[in-house]
Amino acid sequence: MAIAPSQEQLAKLRIEVASWAYGNSGTRFRVFGTPGTPRDPFEKIADAAQVHAATGLAPTVAIHIPWDRVDDYDALRRHAEDLGVAVGTVNSNTFQEEDYKFGSLTHPDARVRRKAVDHHLECIDIMRATGVRDLKIWLADGTNYPGQDSIRARQDRLAEGLAAIYAALDADQRLLLEYKFFEPAFYHTDVPDWGTSFAHTVALGEQAKVVLDTGHHAPGTNIEFIVAQLLRLGKLGAFDLNSRFYADDDLIVGLADPFQLFRIMHELVAGGGYGDPDVQLVLDQCHNIEAKIPGQIRSVLNVQEAVAKVLSIDTEALAAAQRDCDVLLANDILMDAYSTDVRPMLAELRAARGLPEDPMRHFLASGYLERIADERVGGAQASWGA
Amino acid sequence: MAIAPSQEQLAKLRIEVASWAYGNSGTRFRVFGTPGTPRDPFEKIADAAQVHAATGLAPTVAIHIPWDRVDDYDALRRHAEDLGVAVGTVNSNTFQEEDYKFGSLTHPDARVRRKAVDHHLECIDIMRATGVRDLKIWLADGTNYPGQDSIRARQDRLAEGLAAIYAALDADQRLLLEYKFFEPAFYHTDVPDWGTSFAHTVALGEQAKVVLDTGHHAPGTNIEFIVAQLLRLGKLGAFDLNSRFYADDDLIVGLADPFQLFRIMHELVAGGGYGDPDVQLVLDQCHNIEAKIPGQIRSVLNVQEAVAKVLSIDTEALAAAQRDCDVLLANDILMDAYSTDVRPMLAELRAARGLPEDPMRHFLASGYLERIADERVGGAQASWGA
Amino acid sequence: MAIAPSQEQLAKLRIEVASWAYGNSGTRFRVFGTPGTPRDPFEKIADAAQVHAATGLAPTVAIHIPWDRVDDYDALRRHAEDLGVAVGTVNSNTFQEEDYKFGSLTHPDARVRRKAVDHHLECIDIMRATGVRDLKIWLADGTNYPGQDSIRARQDRLAEGLAAIYAALDADQRLLLEYKFFEPAFYHTDVPDWGTSFAHTVALGEQAKVVLDTGHHAPGTNIEFIVAQLLRLGKLGAFDLNSRFYADDDLIVGLADPFQLFRIMHELVAGGGYGDPDVQLVLDQCHNIEAKIPGQIRSVLNVQEAVAKVLSIDTEALAAAQRDCDVLLANDILMDAYSTDVRPMLAELRAARGLPEDPMRHFLASGYLERIADERVGGAQASWGA
Amino acid sequence: MAIAPSQEQLAKLRIEVASWAYGNSGTRFRVFGTPGTPRDPFEKIADAAQVHAATGLAPTVAIHIPWDRVDDYDALRRHAEDLGVAVGTVNSNTFQEEDYKFGSLTHPDARVRRKAVDHHLECIDIMRATGVRDLKIWLADGTNYPGQDSIRARQDRLAEGLAAIYAALDADQRLLLEYKFFEPAFYHTDVPDWGTSFAHTVALGEQAKVVLDTGHHAPGTNIEFIVAQLLRLGKLGAFDLNSRFYADDDLIVGLADPFQLFRIMHELVAGGGYGDPDVQLVLDQCHNIEAKIPGQIRSVLNVQEAVAKVLSIDTEALAAAQRDCDVLLANDILMDAYSTDVRPMLAELRAARGLPEDPMRHFLASGYLERIADERVGGAQASWGA
Repeated sequence: MAIAPSQEQLAKLRIEVASWAYGNSGTRFRVFGTPGTPRDPFEKIADAAQVHAATGLAPTVAIHIPWDRVDDYDALRRHAEDLGVAVGTVNSNTFQEEDYKFGSLTHPDARVRRKAVDHHLECIDIMRATGVRDLKIWLADGTNYPGQDSIRARQDRLAEGLAAIYAALDADQRLLLEYKFFEPAFYHTDVPDWGTSFAHTVALGEQAKVVLDTGHHAPGTNIEFIVAQLLRLGKLGAFDLNSRFYADDDLIVGLADPFQLFRIMHELVAGGGYGDPDVQLVLDQCHNIEAKIPGQIRSVLNVQEAVAKVLSIDTEALAAAQRDCDVLLANDILMDAYSTDVRPMLAELRAARGLPEDPMRHFLASGYLERIADERVGGAQASWGA
Repeated sequence: MAIAPSQEQLAKLRIEVASWAYGNSGTRFRVFGTPGTPRDPFEKIADAAQVHAATGLAPTVAIHIPWDRVDDYDALRRHAEDLGVAVGTVNSNTFQEEDYKFGSLTHPDARVRRKAVDHHLECIDIMRATGVRDLKIWLADGTNYPGQDSIRARQDRLAEGLAAIYAALDADQRLLLEYKFFEPAFYHTDVPDWGTSFAHTVALGEQAKVVLDTGHHAPGTNIEFIVAQLLRLGKLGAFDLNSRFYADDDLIVGLADPFQLFRIMHELVAGGGYGDPDVQLVLDQCHNIEAKIPGQIRSVLNVQEAVAKVLSIDTEALAAAQRDCDVLLANDILMDAYSTDVRPMLAELRAARGLPEDPMRHFLASGYLERIADERVGGAQASWGA
Repeated sequence: MAIAPSQEQLAKLRIEVASWAYGNSGTRFRVFGTPGTPRDPFEKIADAAQVHAATGLAPTVAIHIPWDRVDDYDALRRHAEDLGVAVGTVNSNTFQEEDYKFGSLTHPDARVRRKAVDHHLECIDIMRATGVRDLKIWLADGTNYPGQDSIRARQDRLAEGLAAIYAALDADQRLLLEYKFFEPAFYHTDVPDWGTSFAHTVALGEQAKVVLDTGHHAPGTNIEFIVAQLLRLGKLGAFDLNSRFYADDDLIVGLADPFQLFRIMHELVAGGGYGDPDVQLVLDQCHNIEAKIPGQIRSVLNVQEAVAKVLSIDTEALAAAQRDCDVLLANDILMDAYSTDVRPMLAELRAARGLPEDPMRHFLASGYLERIADERVGGAQASWGA
Repeated sequence: MAIAPSQEQLAKLRIEVASWAYGNSGTRFRVFGTPGTPRDPFEKIADAAQVHAATGLAPTVAIHIPWDRVDDYDALRRHAEDLGVAVGTVNSNTFQEEDYKFGSLTHPDARVRRKAVDHHLECIDIMRATGVRDLKIWLADGTNYPGQDSIRARQDRLAEGLAAIYAALDADQRLLLEYKFFEPAFYHTDVPDWGTSFAHTVALGEQAKVVLDTGHHAPGTNIEFIVAQLLRLGKLGAFDLNSRFYADDDLIVGLADPFQLFRIMHELVAGGGYGDPDVQLVLDQCHNIEAKIPGQIRSVLNVQEAVAKVLSIDTEALAAAQRDCDVLLANDILMDAYSTDVRPMLAELRAARGLPEDPMRHFLASGYLERIADERVGGAQASWGA
């Protein structure tokens, strides 16, 4: 029953990768290193460019400030362009200084709040320097104990801080507000759910949108519903894609629940978000124990396969079965597309576009991993802490 | 460190009880009956009036249509008044007819949607006949299987249906939209979270508010955050109070996690919702295995104790500790109030207001339970199915 | 990388269906009926036989006592055989009489415990009369409120009751003890987890085994781990298969998380349980809103597809990658099998075995559904309550 | 209805504290430091001794190897004794070396498994040198991706490794095996639940017991049931106490769900584990943002209050109500004890035993915190990484 999607449709897919995925990451128990890990933003972008070269799917690289601070942002921009990619979303970071122990934009102390706002103004400057449109804000703000601070007062401070940042945006820039259920705060977080992101971005204005990270929900949450709802409300700005079995595990997208990824992409397509540059797909993952660049290649291919399956849905037949309340037939039409092996179709698409038919094999055979392991000696490997 | 709240503050508490709590309820596995269970709305209200007589806390009784349909609503209203209570919120029900198998306001078929809207218009008529302000809408609408229906199309139908109902309200009436995580729909529900209720009620207008049922969230959800947020946004219309360990267990409020109830009441008080007639406290429980009227008395007392503890918080000291980021002190101030045994203080309050000091003992000694067991023979006991 | 499994391997699959799946079921909110629903055990078995006729996968039908009580069990047995199937596991039921309101084998009152034991002795008699090996025990026992009863005392009573039942088994019969996280009990259940089932069945002896129902776990539980562990410990007696998004949703197996079903089947195969008659695969589902017989056909096909994918895993390559700690390669080998479209292979298998290549289409075209809708008028449709 | 417990009963409480609680801890996002944080095991024990001095409740201090490795264990032992405490449980650590990236006792490579066993043999030597009875094993072992390694093979390796360690124990030593739902492994952990710990410790023998960490369960798990079950099975060796709202949050015990702590202590007392030296109560917490020594004082007091409430339960009346299936009365008897303010009674107990009536105030007034902040300059503050 599945239909064959057009190459044109398939070719609309763009996935942003994140610079920090190429550095080391881990848990509170241990951060394991790997030979060849980048030591600076330039090397991170070089690695990211490999993913795009192999797959044709990842033309932009998100950066994180201060992790990716450089002296010359124009040089960084040109470096990326020379490698066939571009600098993407600028991510702020207000969780790694002593001042932020009890919050940033929501902190009880006005001095700290001011500092956090200023950090975002710096990010907006960097956006201008790198030609970037989107500022993504994820806050570690929250409390660990009931009573520690006023939940309500913190919301008001948050609104105030966001307004100050929003006011500094250029007309063609956007503020994207991410929500997260928990971690690192363990009693309450100041932006815990899509409703909170939504309410704040509505209050800010048209240039403010919501970021949906697929790992940032309570157990059992129907994420595709939120996708459909935010698209309907015109407020879905970007995805942070990854997989989770338990919490914010930040595993490779599509490897914990590939059917969920398919359903999410189904709502993205159905709601008109697919191929829309205003709805960004971004990988936000941690390759704690697996090879990083191959992990990223696997990730973008997983998203591509999910999208290809979604584009194979016979939407007319589906709509008819839904109209008839034929539960099993409607579900069958969906599952039929999901059960289809789209890999041969995607290999053809790659061949037609001059890309390696098997990107993973191509990359592993390229010798790149061996080369960086040899060359990148000395210096400090990039990680969350630096 | 706890302070003594004034009797005036304590006396502001009003809790609505629900007629269906006095009928039989159960699980899909079994509905157990009890001698003396009411057989009609008049007997339900008689039982509910006992709760108010014993506690002085429960002056209104929510009704459910069609379960509480009567020929003469004015008679029902007078019956309640004669017993010292009043008819409260009118709850609609669009989940017990064959037509609603696949939804009501969200159904693919326009005929069923129209029927569901008409049912709500009938409810509004009953509100007029009984002098009731609030229409509470909880929908069982949703799907069990991915693909069964379009999540997005159902949202649009929902918006349309709600708008039609809202348009029929008198200027002093309100529409309250309840959300629920899951059950009876097992893949998606059409109003799963506060964000969805919020977005719809904002679109409807000032007379539309959100209902927060404490049992309708994903595991681990910080409910008091939602309370604080909805109060801040001016959209919290009512609570459905109950307890849960797992899902929508509908147990007696305060018996699964009394500290959570305290935290919820803390945000209610802190956000100005306590004592505000526009933020209703309602019990929505199922006494599957315990005695019903005593279960209701226990419930309103649990809420009263939680509120009394909250009113014992030294809010000035708390604010100071929060300002100082003194995590342990701030938490200690909260916990100190929580650890206080407020029962003697509440017994005094009752004595001062001419109420029995020990409402449960008083009621059990009254012989009412024995009397209704003797008198209510024959007829069909009220339950969800009738 | 996936390999082609042999038809002999594929043909080992046997799935037991349950008689109650053909009757009506629902939630506490509503049980919807369908034309043609069976009115007695004979009609249920007739429907079940259709599933086997269409798929060749479902040769046995579990029964539930008292729902499937008949005067002449030999007649029931012959009826099944005439239709090409056999009576399967006997399921006891101690949750639908007033006496069981507070428990059955764990009840504080010795009289009720004795009654519950006697019910199981009746089930064992029925096993003898129908030539059935397995007695499956799932208990609704538990409490709704802390303190309601002694958790510890109930365990001791449970052990005593199970021992009495176990003692009555013939040497070739088995007692299968199912566990469940919650529902209908909402504070604690007396057999909440595999550890409890395991401890009791170890205490009972070799003829006692554990039943794993895929919907009976806490959110996030790694079910395939339990499968691997119970097989290792020699204590996995049977599966109750179904799907869930939230709680014990009892949806069609493989439609909520098909990758989880694949992983579960992978551990079944890896642990030697596949094709072993001592590890039964049973469907335990509720077709609340979808057509029942087609729902069952879809279910057994979903299991078959999952098994076929598992049998396509290149286990030698997988073991080598695991030995090398090559995380991505090992995962890729697994995912490659999962991504394979096994439906053509299974159509061939069916053709080779004289079965319809497309069982669903074949059944829907047979006119059976229309026939039973016409013929089965009058009488009471079977459901959980009868 | 609550009864007054005897001082003798109250005085039986012993809580072990953990050395690592006095060092810095945090999340993967950030570890915040505090002035005065210990730099070596001797300073950690000095801090721990303050908790015992203030409360009389914490006579032993668990250590962690290699974090607490010293040249002279006898000196460490005497240092503790001089300060009025003793060295407690020895905790192994096989998660912070590169070798353990893919597991320790379960690693595919026999060399790594041997190394992990050897580490435990070293721990047993340290137990002998410090006069410690208990070896506590928590493994970070697990996998992040399906297929990464064989779940079954890892169980077999685990059994083998544990057997080798167990064989090295002296006759009066114990092996305590802790289980954990997830983290740092995100797909499966090798000891995820009490059933797995139980099965392994049964296979090992009488000197092997289970450790229950209150933060290591799936959402919604009824922990007190597991306490009751393990006590019944004679296999509960120790608790790791802490609080959690979401995952393994490691917050101060009793501050997330004080009623749950009460219920856990209720089963401990009811099952005979209270006051039994074979059932250890240990704090395992992370004071990421709050003061550490005060955080520990608060913790042991919270446990003491919970125990005092439990000892206030009128157990005879409770048993009678349970026998009568009087759900509300039985629950009321429990809740009555829970609602009692036991703090005055505990202040009296302290006075009678020559302890400060208000331990927190006493400690804060002592100047200890200021002194260590002044004195402990230079050196590296202890944390998980060192």
